[in-house]
Amino acid sequence: MENRNRTVAVVGAGDFIGAEICKAFAAEGFTIFAGRRNGDKLAPLVAEIEAAGGTIHARSLDARKEDEVVQFMAEAEATAPLEVCIFNIGANVNFPYVETTERVFRKVWEMACYAGFLTGREAAKAMLPRNEGCIFFTGATAGLRGGKGFAAFASAKFGLRAMAESAARELMPQGIHVAHLVIDSGVDTAWVRERMAESGRDRVLMRPASVAQTYIQLWKQPKDAWTFETQIRPSVEAW
Amino acid sequence: MENRNRTVAVVGAGDFIGAEICKAFAAEGFTIFAGRRNGDKLAPLVAEIEAAGGTIHARSLDARKEDEVVQFMAEAEATAPLEVCIFNIGANVNFPYVETTERVFRKVWEMACYAGFLTGREAAKAMLPRNEGCIFFTGATAGLRGGKGFAAFASAKFGLRAMAESAARELMPQGIHVAHLVIDSGVDTAWVRERMAESGRDRVLMRPASVAQTYIQLWKQPKDAWTFETQIRPSVEAW
Amino acid sequence: MENRNRTVAVVGAGDFIGAEICKAFAAEGFTIFAGRRNGDKLAPLVAEIEAAGGTIHARSLDARKEDEVVQFMAEAEATAPLEVCIFNIGANVNFPYVETTERVFRKVWEMACYAGFLTGREAAKAMLPRNEGCIFFTGATAGLRGGKGFAAFASAKFGLRAMAESAARELMPQGIHVAHLVIDSGVDTAWVRERMAESGRDRVLMRPASVAQTYIQLWKQPKDAWTFETQIRPSVEAW
Amino acid sequence: MENRNRTVAVVGAGDFIGAEICKAFAAEGFTIFAGRRNGDKLAPLVAEIEAAGGTIHARSLDARKEDEVVQFMAEAEATAPLEVCIFNIGANVNFPYVETTERVFRKVWEMACYAGFLTGREAAKAMLPRNEGCIFFTGATAGLRGGKGFAAFASAKFGLRAMAESAARELMPQGIHVAHLVIDSGVDTAWVRERMAESGRDRVLMRPASVAQTYIQLWKQPKDAWTFETQIRPSVEAW
Repeated sequence: MENRNRTVAVVGAGDFIGAEICKAFAAEGFTIFAGRRNGDKLAPLVAEIEAAGGTIHARSLDARKEDEVVQFMAEAEATAPLEVCIFNIGANVNFPYVETTERVFRKVWEMACYAGFLTGREAAKAMLPRNEGCIFFTGATAGLRGGKGFAAFASAKFGLRAMAESAARELMPQGIHVAHLVIDSGVDTAWVRERMAESGRDRVLMRPASVAQTYIQLWKQPKDAWTFETQIRPSVEAW
Repeated sequence: MENRNRTVAVVGAGDFIGAEICKAFAAEGFTIFAGRRNGDKLAPLVAEIEAAGGTIHARSLDARKEDEVVQFMAEAEATAPLEVCIFNIGANVNFPYVETTERVFRKVWEMACYAGFLTGREAAKAMLPRNEGCIFFTGATAGLRGGKGFAAFASAKFGLRAMAESAARELMPQGIHVAHLVIDSGVDTAWVRERMAESGRDRVLMRPASVAQTYIQLWKQPKDAWTFETQIRPSVEAW
Repeated sequence: MENRNRTVAVVGAGDFIGAEICKAFAAEGFTIFAGRRNGDKLAPLVAEIEAAGGTIHARSLDARKEDEVVQFMAEAEATAPLEVCIFNIGANVNFPYVETTERVFRKVWEMACYAGFLTGREAAKAMLPRNEGCIFFTGATAGLRGGKGFAAFASAKFGLRAMAESAARELMPQGIHVAHLVIDSGVDTAWVRERMAESGRDRVLMRPASVAQTYIQLWKQPKDAWTFETQIRPSVEAW
Repeated sequence: MENRNRTVAVVGAGDFIGAEICKAFAAEGFTIFAGRRNGDKLAPLVAEIEAAGGTIHARSLDARKEDEVVQFMAEAEATAPLEVCIFNIGANVNFPYVETTERVFRKVWEMACYAGFLTGREAAKAMLPRNEGCIFFTGATAGLRGGKGFAAFASAKFGLRAMAESAARELMPQGIHVAHLVIDSGVDTAWVRERMAESGRDRVLMRPASVAQTYIQLWKQPKDAWTFETQIRPSVEAW
């Protein structure tokens, strides 16, 4: 594996989608900067990527805190030029409208939207002087449809999508590829499997590695054919 | 003018759109509860509505504060059953993406989205026991399109729209009409006239009274033909 | 009822929605020009409107035939200036994709899209010299979503909507209000009641008179707050 | 180049996008069936692909004629199982609304929508027994927005998109990947260069090869992460 001397920052490097994104880009020769709330939990991922000959730096990161995001991105950029930044934090909750507390509404927004803004902005600051780079945001169906019980989650995901779209219109002409990936499916994670077990509903889930491959495809797009928004779902998913 | 013994709560009862909404519903015989940051500024509106034989209660209200919203709505409901609630706070700002401070991003969201959530939720609590009422949100083009420089504003307006849509899917079957009105135009306000003067661009503006009449139409819709989302613009507006 | 000396042309004046539109505008003092495939079937509507003191001209009209549309609209305009034109022809069918014949695909398009184009264009020709008038198109959910089994119907309804949108962008600045009304519901017609009986599903239906009232509201909008697209559905409809 | 013993049918194999699609899939080892109105014009493409060691069959095809489409697809399938079918016919015209003739409106629809329906349906018939295959449609911005002067073109492109969406909802669960690619840009073709020269406007164009690569990416997607709709545009394109 050729080392590219470029970094990929993954904000929200959880056990499933985030981890697969890290592995996929590490396999392309990137140095990975992986952040999640409790950085200790990144140990198995670090071991796996290093065993495969890759390079990864694991960090504890609360992406709702501006100074932490600033420092995380600065450190990534200091290691090698930041080429790709992927924001991958979700906050899926469902409550009846009148039972949605102000605390939930605010917290979901801080995690799924505000943290994405901080991440995208700091990545853009690093990339703009070079006029190149990719900033990708993991979206969900809730970013396009305000379903019943999703006042907090859909509001945050719509907000993330709008922020990404606004960033795309400004940054793409300056050489930075901004994309918003709508995952219209359950993804095979521990959390989703638990929800499925609770509800008794069975459902074909998307493999986290397939999400990662979609990001690899977006990164490979030629500059005259960039995608801002795309959606992916399993063949059998109803929509 | 027949007195209906019903209240209309207007959150964001500014000098232009908000004031016209108050006047339009006062003319229909409603008791108006009008809130804006500095309630003293409501004096001329109160005088005008009272001179016309209407009833209005003016309040200072920071709709980003949960306790203030709770109290405002409780007071409205205590005066007479709350039939209509209209959220009308905007926060239009434009900044380059990397110059958007976290303070601006958060404040715009608190004003244009979070305050709307608190308002809608408290109105719903009052209306649900009766299974009737109307909750209307003033939206903007930025709620459907993340334009250049509007990362903060579009993010908040998309968030408001998603929250409204989620509320609509839950509350409409329970008898509460939720609507999101997209104003795809500049409205004739002091603020917009200043922006136009600054930019040197001339533009046909929408009269605030026309916005108010659209809300009256939404309120009059029969229960088998409710609109969740509609947009209005001047005939000559390019879109 | 004051006579306005203005005509309203209704293309697709069937027994339900179309008839209610005719009655609603007749009650506003308009002279109605009503066209449907078999004009003889308009006799009861003519009797009802005339009994109420209104004026209506009934015509047999195959709106897929250019010369018939041209003549219908010219006759309407010759009687009194054409102020409102409403296109109200549907063609709802559902077939598996590979079983959709080319004949069905073409016929549905001719009825639901092509006839709408001819109608809108001829109405525009009459209205443009006066720079005023309204051209309204009855749309459906299938104009926004290509559901399973609706390749023919959705294709035609999307096509109608696009044509209307294009017309709106060109004609509204010239004083002609173009609107597309999305009816996201079953409407209470004989055909829909039969489908419901077949499927055994019960559903709250929209009264045709409510559709007509929505058109009256659109016609009443002030020129600085025109709606191009709006949707209506019963409060209990899932969407 | 490994020969896959599978065919790719390209309907609308013009000099630019269509030709690049043929070359890209030929380079993947597919046998190409290329159809365009005047099949003689395919000679240079045939020469190029054969020189590179590929296999291509060139046919004259008027895709608005059901029997020709049926025969074209049957022949492709008879040569080797049909794995990919790409519909790539456009018909971009711009006319003032009232000057759009019924002949133009109908012809544009027949080329850009009806021919796409025939193509997709015949491809589906071949693929369904195997429960695998890809059916891709080339779309345009006009499939999402009815711009001024585009009543005919947008109507046809919306219609194509709806048909594709309906097909996707039905066929994807049966193993057939249906996608609609929105090209939000001028593509570097002779026709577009002429329009640019006429208008005096300069614009960054998309290379036809980049469109072809996007189709290769769609074809490579794993079955748990299929895209129905995506859009591509040059980095500098305003949208």
